[in-house]
Amino acid sequence: MELKKFWEEREKLNEKILREGNLYTKRFFALDNDVYKDGAIPRKYKEMMGLVASIVLRCDGCIMYHIVKCVEMGITKEEFYELLNIAMVVGGSITIPHIRKAVKYFEEARQLQL
Amino acid sequence: MELKKFWEEREKLNEKILREGNLYTKRFFALDNDVYKDGAIPRKYKEMMGLVASIVLRCDGCIMYHIVKCVEMGITKEEFYELLNIAMVVGGSITIPHIRKAVKYFEEARQLQL
Amino acid sequence: MELKKFWEEREKLNEKILREGNLYTKRFFALDNDVYKDGAIPRKYKEMMGLVASIVLRCDGCIMYHIVKCVEMGITKEEFYELLNIAMVVGGSITIPHIRKAVKYFEEARQLQL
Amino acid sequence: MELKKFWEEREKLNEKILREGNLYTKRFFALDNDVYKDGAIPRKYKEMMGLVASIVLRCDGCIMYHIVKCVEMGITKEEFYELLNIAMVVGGSITIPHIRKAVKYFEEARQLQL
Amino acid sequence: MELKKFWEEREKLNEKILREGNLYTKRFFALDNDVYKDGAIPRKYKEMMGLVASIVLRCDGCIMYHIVKCVEMGITKEEFYELLNIAMVVGGSITIPHIRKAVKYFEEARQLQL
Amino acid sequence: MELKKFWEEREKLNEKILREGNLYTKRFFALDNDVYKDGAIPRKYKEMMGLVASIVLRCDGCIMYHIVKCVEMGITKEEFYELLNIAMVVGGSITIPHIRKAVKYFEEARQLQL
Repeated sequence: MELKKFWEEREKLNEKILREGNLYTKRFFALDNDVYKDGAIPRKYKEMMGLVASIVLRCDGCIMYHIVKCVEMGITKEEFYELLNIAMVVGGSITIPHIRKAVKYFEEARQLQL
Repeated sequence: MELKKFWEEREKLNEKILREGNLYTKRFFALDNDVYKDGAIPRKYKEMMGLVASIVLRCDGCIMYHIVKCVEMGITKEEFYELLNIAMVVGGSITIPHIRKAVKYFEEARQLQL
Repeated sequence: MELKKFWEEREKLNEKILREGNLYTKRFFALDNDVYKDGAIPRKYKEMMGLVASIVLRCDGCIMYHIVKCVEMGITKEEFYELLNIAMVVGGSITIPHIRKAVKYFEEARQLQL
Repeated sequence: MELKKFWEEREKLNEKILREGNLYTKRFFALDNDVYKDGAIPRKYKEMMGLVASIVLRCDGCIMYHIVKCVEMGITKEEFYELLNIAMVVGGSITIPHIRKAVKYFEEARQLQL
Repeated sequence: MELKKFWEEREKLNEKILREGNLYTKRFFALDNDVYKDGAIPRKYKEMMGLVASIVLRCDGCIMYHIVKCVEMGITKEEFYELLNIAMVVGGSITIPHIRKAVKYFEEARQLQL
Repeated sequence: MELKKFWEEREKLNEKILREGNLYTKRFFALDNDVYKDGAIPRKYKEMMGLVASIVLRCDGCIMYHIVKCVEMGITKEEFYELLNIAMVVGGSITIPHIRKAVKYFEEARQLQL
C-alpha cells in the first residue's frame, strides 16, 4: 500500500532531520504542527485547508499527509469530493493527476487508520 | 481604495469576457461560482479554502476576491489570522508580501461591504 | 512500459471519480475534454499547447497524456523538439528532468498507439 | 495605455541588461528570441504556445509581450478566446485575473501596433 | 522611488501583522529573520540564496527585500549579474520581467541605503 | 540506490536529447552548464544557489543533480542544513517532502562519489 510505505519513510526521515538539523529546523517543524491545532477554526477545517493547499500546489507527499489527517478528523466522502472540486477549479486540470492519487489515497487511509 | 477599484475593473472585464467568450468560457465561469455553494461543507469554509489556495498560489486578484467573500460570510479576525498562519506556513515566506496585502484588503473589505 | 501503466491507472481512477464525484466534478472533466476540440485553432495545435503548458507547470501525468494526444494528431519529431525548446526556454532548466521524461514517453507513445 | 508604458520600460531595461550583463545573459536573451522563429511549427503557433505558457505561469509581463507578438502574427478573436479557454482550464480559476488582463491587453495591442 | 515606497508600506504592515497576529505569526516572522544569520554559510551568500529563490518563484516584494539586504552585504555588480544568470537559467524566460525589475531595484538600492 | 539510478537514466537521456535535439536545445544545455562556472561568485556557492532554487521549485530531479554537485564542491553537513532551512522557510512546509528526499540523497551522494 503506497500510503503506508510513504508514512514509514516519512517517520524515519523526519526523525533523522530533527536529530541532525539545527534549532531553526526544529522550530519550523514545530510551527508546521502548531498552526493546525484547534482554535477559532476547528481542526477539521484546518486540515481540509491544508489539503486544498497541497492539491493546488501539487505536492503528493503533502496530499498523502493531509488526507490521513482529514480521515482522522472524520471527513465524509461528500465533503471530500466538494473539497476536490474546489481544488480542481482553482488549480485547473493540471491538478487532475493529483486528484486521481488523492482519490486512491483516501480509500487507503480509510482502511489503514495510521 | 485599492479593493474598490479592483472590484469595478473585475465586473467590467468579466462582462466583456462573458459577452465575447464562447460556450466553454461561460461554463468555466459558472463552475467557478458553483463549487463554492453551500453543501456538505458550509459556504463560509469553502470561501476560506479558496482564500488559502489564493495565498499559497500568490494571486493578488484572487486574494481580493475571496477576502470580500469571506467578509460577506462573517469571518472573524481570529479566524482570519489562523487562516493566514496556515497559508504562510504551507506556502513559506514567499507568501509574506501577499499576506501583507491580505491584511490591508481585509480592513478595506470590512469597511466597504461590496 | 511506464506510459502504458499510467494509462491503465488513469482510466480506472477517472471512472471511479466520475462514478463517485458530484455534478461539478463531471462538468469539469467534460470541459477539460471540450476545450481541445477542433475549432478556429486546429486540434493538433491545441494538444501541443496543452503539452507546453504541462511541461512549464512540470506535471508528469499531464505530459504523458498530452504526448499520447500529440502523437495521435501526427506530431513529427521536428515539431516535438521545437515545442520542447519553447517549453524549456520559458520554464527554465527546472523543466529539464521533465523534458527527459517527455523524450522517453514520446518514444513509447509512438510504439504504443494507445 | 498600460501596454505602451510596459513596452517602453521593457525596451529601456532590456538595453541596460544587455549592456551590463555578461556573455551568458546575452546568450539567454538570444535563445529566448530564437526558439520562436518559423520552423516545423509556424511562428504564429509558437507565439500562441508562448502565450498559453505565460498565462498558466501567471506572468503579466510575459502575457503582454506574447499578446503583442500574437497580434503581429494576425491572431483572430476566435483563436484568442479558444487559447484563453485552454489556458484557463489547464491553469484553473487562479488564472482568471490574468485572463481579464489578457482581454484588456489584446484590445490595446490591436489598436496600438507596437 | 518604487523601492522606498515598498519599504515604508512593508514596515507599516509588518507592524500591524505582529500587533494583530497570534503567537505563531510572530514565530514565523522571527524564523524568517533567523535563518539568514551568519553561520557556516556567510550571511552575504544566504541573502544571495534568498534572492535567487525570490526570482525563480517570481515574487517582486521578496526580490525588493533581498536586493536591499544583498546591497547591505556589499554584493558587487559582477556577483549580481552572475546571480541573475543562475536564476534566469533555472527559472526560464518567465523570470525576465522580474529580472528587469531586479536590475532597476538594484540601482535604487545602491542609491538609497535603506 | 535511488541517486545512482537517476544518474544513469539522466546520462542516457541527455545524450539522446543532444543527439536528436536541434541547435537551440544544445545551446540551452550548454548555458545551463556555463552559469555555474567559477567567477565572481565561487562555484560552490553557485551550486548551493542552484540547490535552493531546486528545493523551492520542488523539482526532485534538480535536487538530486545539485546535491551531487554540492558534495563534489565539498559542502559540509552544517552548510547543508543551513541551506535547507533557508529553502524551507522561503518555500514553506510544501517543500518538506522534498527536504526529506534531499536528506536521503545527501547521504547517498557522500557515499557514492558520482
